Amino acid sequence: MTEWHMDIGATPVAGGVRFRVWAPLASSVDVVRCGDGEKEPSPLARAGDYFQGTITGMAAGDRYRYLVDGTLRRPDPASRCQPEGVHGPSQVVDPDFAWSDGGWQGVKLEELITCELHVGTFTPEGTFQGVMERLDYLCELGVTALELMPVVEFPGRRNWGYDGVFPFAPHHAYGGAAGLKALVDACHCRGLSVILDVVYNHLGPEGNYLHSFAPYFTNRYRTPWGDAVNFDGPLSDGVRHYIIANALHWVSEYHMDGLRIDAIHGIYDFSARHILRDITQAVNSLARRLGRNVHVIAESELNDVRTIMPAESGGHGLHAQWCDDFHHGLMTYLTGERCGYFVDFGTFRQLEKAFREGFVYSGEYSRHHRRRHGSSSADLPPRRLVVFSQNHDQVGNRALGDRPSSRLSLEQLKLAAAAVILSPYLPLIFMGEEYGETAPFPYFTSHGDPELAAAVRQGRRTEFASFEVHGEVPDPQAEGTFITAGIDPERRRHGWHRFIYAFYRELIRLRRELPQLRAPERDRIEVAGLEADEVIALC
Amino acid sequence: MTEWHMDIGATPVAGGVRFRVWAPLASSVDVVRCGDGEKEPSPLARAGDYFQGTITGMAAGDRYRYLVDGTLRRPDPASRCQPEGVHGPSQVVDPDFAWSDGGWQGVKLEELITCELHVGTFTPEGTFQGVMERLDYLCELGVTALELMPVVEFPGRRNWGYDGVFPFAPHHAYGGAAGLKALVDACHCRGLSVILDVVYNHLGPEGNYLHSFAPYFTNRYRTPWGDAVNFDGPLSDGVRHYIIANALHWVSEYHMDGLRIDAIHGIYDFSARHILRDITQAVNSLARRLGRNVHVIAESELNDVRTIMPAESGGHGLHAQWCDDFHHGLMTYLTGERCGYFVDFGTFRQLEKAFREGFVYSGEYSRHHRRRHGSSSADLPPRRLVVFSQNHDQVGNRALGDRPSSRLSLEQLKLAAAAVILSPYLPLIFMGEEYGETAPFPYFTSHGDPELAAAVRQGRRTEFASFEVHGEVPDPQAEGTFITAGIDPERRRHGWHRFIYAFYRELIRLRRELPQLRAPERDRIEVAGLEADEVIALC
Repeated sequence: MTEWHMDIGATPVAGGVRFRVWAPLASSVDVVRCGDGEKEPSPLARAGDYFQGTITGMAAGDRYRYLVDGTLRRPDPASRCQPEGVHGPSQVVDPDFAWSDGGWQGVKLEELITCELHVGTFTPEGTFQGVMERLDYLCELGVTALELMPVVEFPGRRNWGYDGVFPFAPHHAYGGAAGLKALVDACHCRGLSVILDVVYNHLGPEGNYLHSFAPYFTNRYRTPWGDAVNFDGPLSDGVRHYIIANALHWVSEYHMDGLRIDAIHGIYDFSARHILRDITQAVNSLARRLGRNVHVIAESELNDVRTIMPAESGGHGLHAQWCDDFHHGLMTYLTGERCGYFVDFGTFRQLEKAFREGFVYSGEYSRHHRRRHGSSSADLPPRRLVVFSQNHDQVGNRALGDRPSSRLSLEQLKLAAAAVILSPYLPLIFMGEEYGETAPFPYFTSHGDPELAAAVRQGRRTEFASFEVHGEVPDPQAEGTFITAGIDPERRRHGWHRFIYAFYRELIRLRRELPQLRAPERDRIEVAGLEADEVIALC
Repeated sequence: MTEWHMDIGATPVAGGVRFRVWAPLASSVDVVRCGDGEKEPSPLARAGDYFQGTITGMAAGDRYRYLVDGTLRRPDPASRCQPEGVHGPSQVVDPDFAWSDGGWQGVKLEELITCELHVGTFTPEGTFQGVMERLDYLCELGVTALELMPVVEFPGRRNWGYDGVFPFAPHHAYGGAAGLKALVDACHCRGLSVILDVVYNHLGPEGNYLHSFAPYFTNRYRTPWGDAVNFDGPLSDGVRHYIIANALHWVSEYHMDGLRIDAIHGIYDFSARHILRDITQAVNSLARRLGRNVHVIAESELNDVRTIMPAESGGHGLHAQWCDDFHHGLMTYLTGERCGYFVDFGTFRQLEKAFREGFVYSGEYSRHHRRRHGSSSADLPPRRLVVFSQNHDQVGNRALGDRPSSRLSLEQLKLAAAAVILSPYLPLIFMGEEYGETAPFPYFTSHGDPELAAAVRQGRRTEFASFEVHGEVPDPQAEGTFITAGIDPERRRHGWHRFIYAFYRELIRLRRELPQLRAPERDRIEVAGLEADEVIALC
């Protein structure tokens, strides 16, 4: 087998569309075609825990819902498109696309220099097409990869993306499946890899209809976002299949070069095979068959080295993970901030350890976690850690969403940039950082459910009630909040932004041109800290 | 450091008693000495998250409670004795004992032939002293180790032990600390190791006062027994210290030769260092210093090979774990039973796999778990698995608690015995099994809380409502239920029991005398199954 095909969802075939949906507890599932005065439901046949069948006369573009047990009309959990939003019908999408990236192999892990961006605010259009039109700019900057914050269908038109509820459906307002494929294709033609942020620890609170089909969730574990995804309980095989299929479909149908798996500390799996290991092995195997470099990268606050240890050594074998400790060590030392989780950071020796080992907390007591925290990453190659001085969370999870560029001096910004980009780790910057964008990146949503909207608004206020906030916490539901987040790279041509931008370009050029800067092995680096002089030397 | 001393609880010192208790959220903790008209409370001093101090004039034998925040009078979470039961005061116990087992090194892992017993029903006395008086009998049988079902203070006088609430206090009615030490000492003098069943996944529902002191529990995970023990949340360092101290105190103060950790599938720890790994490393380190063989053995239904993989290979490094699959494979094949979890077993090939690999479910779909289950133990040495045809659970968790000896033919019983004792694994028998004891081992309790008693009674009936039960489910609270469980080894001299007993003795003698039977390496064993002849050959 050299290719992979989705075996769930709707797939156009000769003369019709094949449907397959996991519904182990349902007594019947029908396909209801929408429009034309709603035709008679077409029954699917049970096959094990799935219902499946080919409906003739249907084709790509058709809209449909499933009818579960003859009573519940629900969109497809594996919908490839939700043209009318999270509550609307699903749409049949042809998985084929006229790719022009033949021969593309992807950027190697150690060559990743990533720019994280949010599709909705990266351009005034807020679409995949908008991003495409700025690719020349990103090439000029010199990064080797884009990382897209989650793009799948979320409620409304404004959202960071972590409230997505259709993991297979790029948001219709961003440009849907075709728009995302066109963007990836254009990136590849310019030599840019694309990494997608995927959320496997929860689904959003609005428009989640998966409950109607199967036990996708469990209340045996509590996450900050409610019930956990059922990766290890009864009937979890179907959930695991759904999630692994999701990972593979991004690589196969969308030619994605990597997945950034959101908040794995919310992924609970006590079974003998951890789902992250299964995902990574499945992606590795597909990538090998396709002859491409595809990276699986975790966001994790566990500081658990097993995440990125090879499977042969008992790890989950992910290729890399985000290293928040590096950010916290660097930014607290620069700014003197100590609120929230920064309480654990601020010393020179911590920053030195971040450079030398990666995890600053490798078993030490953490005041924030109120327990000893973490294991040591000192023995792992630096390419297993992604570092940054800004990202959507570190900017957006501040009360006002303000960026370092609105608080720090030019010299401080340059120091942060150099620390990240010339580090032995994999550098990541947040859209606009490269020229000192001062637009904030506040939290924004556009929930349709008024009760939920009020709860989110209130939750945000409560979250920062104990912080000293210089100004009003922005209302996440207000369109104005979203609008303030829009960035404008034209600023790079003006005033002090010019200097910052030139500096970032030069750092990136150095990293690309000097092989010794490209995530070397640990034994090739020495880190020396001279505290009195505030100097950390890497050689 | 060559020895280890408890740093929590009450410890007699010159002129008084030193107290130390973990109470990170308390504003004050006092010691209240009981008796003599209740003296003035003596305040302890805060030291970090602990309260501590030496109260002069107190001595071993004194009874006390802690007074938390000036309002709650509570027994000591690290009480070494509860002379008046779970709701009564704690008692100061001198940890010293006149040991006569100098030079004892313990039985090696591969030489373990274990008899599991329940102190309350093993003899008419139901005490540690009673067990001591039967040690000659156990030596005659030839086993090399006793495994005691949990012995720590539980509510009332009748309990399997899994409702214990004072993990450091041997039950006063069994004979308390001194009684247990005398038993272990006597075992060692006869060359018997002693393994203790310890429960680290929950505390019993009655008499658990730990909530008053600290967040020992968390509601982030749900276990079948309620809130999980807080091994990874805020303030969990104190919980981990408490549990590790518990493991070490059995080895140090009681000279235990092993711990059987109950139901590790109820131990939830997502931190970067799993508590089981920390426990095992601490025990290993102490055992090395003491020059003794001390084994850490898990009960687990996870079929997760990481439990018993070495820490260097990413495992928790436990020395062995119980292998239920072997039991289920063997007994379903012998009896044809298919109810409950037996639904997953019954074929010849499964039994053959149990002999060849250990885990029968190494990733296959399990109807009982309703998902794929387990990982492969094929590459691990057979000494990592403990096997049995009976144990307290496999007998007692049947509706009537009836034993195989009351259902199977003599030939079937002999086959089961030979399969276990001559297996490449570590054999374990359940008290009385060796002569075909027919007394049942039903579930019994003696809760003092009437509501809880009614709930347990009802729960037991409900549990078996869907089973075909030939008779009334015994009332766990009735004293008669407990009494029926008493065994009588005198039976070994009569009728068919004689033959069974002689057979077990001979099997055990063979295992002890033939080195090739002593848990060899995997590559030294070949397993051949001839299904048509119903023969499994090991060579």
